[in-house]
Amino acid sequence: MLEYGFKDDSLSLHTDLYQINMAETYWRDGIHEKKAIFELFFRRLPFENGYAVFAGLEKAIEYLENFKFTDSDLSYLQDELGYHEDFIEYLRGLSFTGSLYSMKEGELVFNNEPIMRVEAPLVEAQLIETALLNIVNYQTLIATKAARIKGVIGDEVALEFGTRRAHEMDAAMWGARAALIGGFSATSNVRAGKRFNIPVSGTHAHALVQAYRDEYTAFKKYAETHKDCVFLVDTYDTLRSGMPNAIRVAKEFGDRINFIGIRLDSGDLAYLSKKARKMLDEAGFTDAKVIASSDLDEHTIMNLKAQGARIDVWGVGTKLITAYDQPALGAVYKLVAIEEDGKMVDTIKISSNPEKVTTPGRKKVYRIINQSNHHSEGDYIALYDEQVNDQKRLRMFHPVHTFISKFVTNFYAKDLHELIFEKGILCYQNPEISDIQQYVQDNLSLLWEEYKRISKPEEYPVDLSEDCWSNKMQRIHEVKSRIEEELEEE
Amino acid sequence: MLEYGFKDDSLSLHTDLYQINMAETYWRDGIHEKKAIFELFFRRLPFENGYAVFAGLEKAIEYLENFKFTDSDLSYLQDELGYHEDFIEYLRGLSFTGSLYSMKEGELVFNNEPIMRVEAPLVEAQLIETALLNIVNYQTLIATKAARIKGVIGDEVALEFGTRRAHEMDAAMWGARAALIGGFSATSNVRAGKRFNIPVSGTHAHALVQAYRDEYTAFKKYAETHKDCVFLVDTYDTLRSGMPNAIRVAKEFGDRINFIGIRLDSGDLAYLSKKARKMLDEAGFTDAKVIASSDLDEHTIMNLKAQGARIDVWGVGTKLITAYDQPALGAVYKLVAIEEDGKMVDTIKISSNPEKVTTPGRKKVYRIINQSNHHSEGDYIALYDEQVNDQKRLRMFHPVHTFISKFVTNFYAKDLHELIFEKGILCYQNPEISDIQQYVQDNLSLLWEEYKRISKPEEYPVDLSEDCWSNKMQRIHEVKSRIEEELEEE
Repeated sequence: MLEYGFKDDSLSLHTDLYQINMAETYWRDGIHEKKAIFELFFRRLPFENGYAVFAGLEKAIEYLENFKFTDSDLSYLQDELGYHEDFIEYLRGLSFTGSLYSMKEGELVFNNEPIMRVEAPLVEAQLIETALLNIVNYQTLIATKAARIKGVIGDEVALEFGTRRAHEMDAAMWGARAALIGGFSATSNVRAGKRFNIPVSGTHAHALVQAYRDEYTAFKKYAETHKDCVFLVDTYDTLRSGMPNAIRVAKEFGDRINFIGIRLDSGDLAYLSKKARKMLDEAGFTDAKVIASSDLDEHTIMNLKAQGARIDVWGVGTKLITAYDQPALGAVYKLVAIEEDGKMVDTIKISSNPEKVTTPGRKKVYRIINQSNHHSEGDYIALYDEQVNDQKRLRMFHPVHTFISKFVTNFYAKDLHELIFEKGILCYQNPEISDIQQYVQDNLSLLWEEYKRISKPEEYPVDLSEDCWSNKMQRIHEVKSRIEEELEEE
Repeated sequence: MLEYGFKDDSLSLHTDLYQINMAETYWRDGIHEKKAIFELFFRRLPFENGYAVFAGLEKAIEYLENFKFTDSDLSYLQDELGYHEDFIEYLRGLSFTGSLYSMKEGELVFNNEPIMRVEAPLVEAQLIETALLNIVNYQTLIATKAARIKGVIGDEVALEFGTRRAHEMDAAMWGARAALIGGFSATSNVRAGKRFNIPVSGTHAHALVQAYRDEYTAFKKYAETHKDCVFLVDTYDTLRSGMPNAIRVAKEFGDRINFIGIRLDSGDLAYLSKKARKMLDEAGFTDAKVIASSDLDEHTIMNLKAQGARIDVWGVGTKLITAYDQPALGAVYKLVAIEEDGKMVDTIKISSNPEKVTTPGRKKVYRIINQSNHHSEGDYIALYDEQVNDQKRLRMFHPVHTFISKFVTNFYAKDLHELIFEKGILCYQNPEISDIQQYVQDNLSLLWEEYKRISKPEEYPVDLSEDCWSNKMQRIHEVKSRIEEELEEE
């Protein structure tokens, strides 16, 4: 092995170099402990889906709890990157002392609403940005993709089989967990099962058949050593060799095994599954399942179902674990307020692209739930101190096309942010995965079907309160005026 | 924190459940120590590129060296998954005792040629499959994408900025390393810099400007605390505010800072870079660089260059670290031979898709280098014992369209496989990253330009030797005959 000088014993340097450079500026200038508020959000829903499923909080908590520069981190910064000793000594004492507000894992989340809000000394909030985005972007992407796929699969079983195609090992692990959150039943990854206490699934691969040279021997040997049997039938010829051999072994072993079914991993799954079903039924194995895998995604599954494929269990790999059709969620983390002379002032980032102008100020997100029909009317982003639930009639309007508006009455406004860390102290207990899974399903039942279509869904309303909108307009105006003044001065 | 019952203290369960089930069958049946030969290869080049750049060996070595089930692994398998104690005890003693042959990192690799060959007791070779694929698929994908992008960038500097969009943390780390292998100069990820001893890069983000409210103050504070300065100029208005303030601060600080240049992160980079260049030149900063980032990939970069964009340094994030346009490489790992009565016999997997039929037998890959023009004529896959270099005239032919053939004379056949582990003992020293980078460039110079076009490149020949081809045809025939016989028997 090549020995590197520094041990990889901490995640605290899992950040972009510019965060460290900014931290140094803040610290030398003495503004590092100013209270800062950053919000984490994305601007576009992934896969043109109608909603996203938030995941990543558990890992984020683990990261923040352990946020501490190790000796090797500090030696690297000083000896290799040349940071001065005084700054290194300052970093040595640093941990996360701020507050984190976050949606719960499994919350449905939409574009432009703050998923997390960090309220912390400026330097701390800055240093944790990159890791938080790295965690939330990936896990939310996969939980969302899994929910889309599971939506098409319906009541049948969905299994996550993607480890070999995942982007390195963390993605396989946390992706498996996110798939469960989105509605999958089990993963093939044993380490994920061990770490997260989630169900694992799998029987045998082509190699078993190749190792024994013929299918009859391979299936027989597997049946001799395992009670639960699923035989993979496409090593040589699915209908002429794999299926007859699977049925032969199942008959020979009878009650000595639990013949769960057969797995198809190539070829035309509609045609083969119908033929396989027929062969199983004719042999008397009417309860045996047809399990299918082979580059499946929500579109292929929908097509196979439309053609009457007789598939009972769907194994999904590559397309889920890599979020193949859109492998990145673009969540960002923006400063929305900072302490100035002991008071908080709102900050903004302007862009020539209207979508990219940030919404200033410390904000809350409410889900407006209609008490008459028990469906969501939309989400409502308000400044922190606004009273929402005591309003009789709530005016909601589109934040860009403001003429699109509606009034809501008889509603309950659910505050979507939980307090996770309060001044550095963790005050939240992660739920079990099964509870998160249930939470997703409960949340989905609040959404009208029109928002859940996998193709061209209706746009779910995410609106700003009037105060929030006016505040944003005022900040834009202030910045623009200042630029004009500066230009005139020259 | 939710406490799980089992500690995540090993990567040995980072595998699919079916591998463990097959291992149990092999062990109970007593064939687990049969010598098996598996080969790792992919069937299609990613991104429709003309070549791929192999990466992943260093991590694979680390994984194999540490392959050992921990107490917590074994408790999980026994207590949660119900494996019997005798099998658990067997697993307790297991480590990797086989041999690994592999291409070196930075080797150019093509479809259907074995990148790695594992020769090991069947059970060991089986258990390591998933992790090897997980590692090689991702790292090779990113090294290849980086080489494509760097090919378009040419002599200018390329920086890897993708951590926040990577698929969780391992992908950010190993992806940064793979980007360097593919030709990038530095990463923004500090932990990757620390762990792999690779250069890191970065200055400040929009948050710095927002924290100080105006650009002049922010740039001044940064200049007061850092010698090397790159100012990000698009927080409010690039040409009317960012650029004038950057130039003002650079002038005020003069020799007290090293004004490296400015960074553009939004807007039309062709237009803005030309304007920025002009403003810098007119202010006398002719050496200052224009650094650009903003969802760049090889196609956008080529377009920007075609329009005369004045960009000196390219920061690439999302599209590289996620391999956005094709986020999975489909490498597979197939049994090609197994011990039978003390002798090795070749094995095959058949498919109705001709591309998916495996090539049986223990094989070597040679790069056929023309001694007259010092370019590669193609790769040549031969059975292990064939003599290649003593041939005067080598016949190469397309393995599917066999009429496409050519004769090569005056060639040198370079064996691309290195021995990495010999019977469990590591006998290879990982090179420095800089040596791997150089190796990639040396390899690329052997390829004709036609294979390196980013769009519709010419197909590089990867041919089978006649013996290898005949052997494959014979195995296909054998399997088909057996199936016919079985059907007739019924």
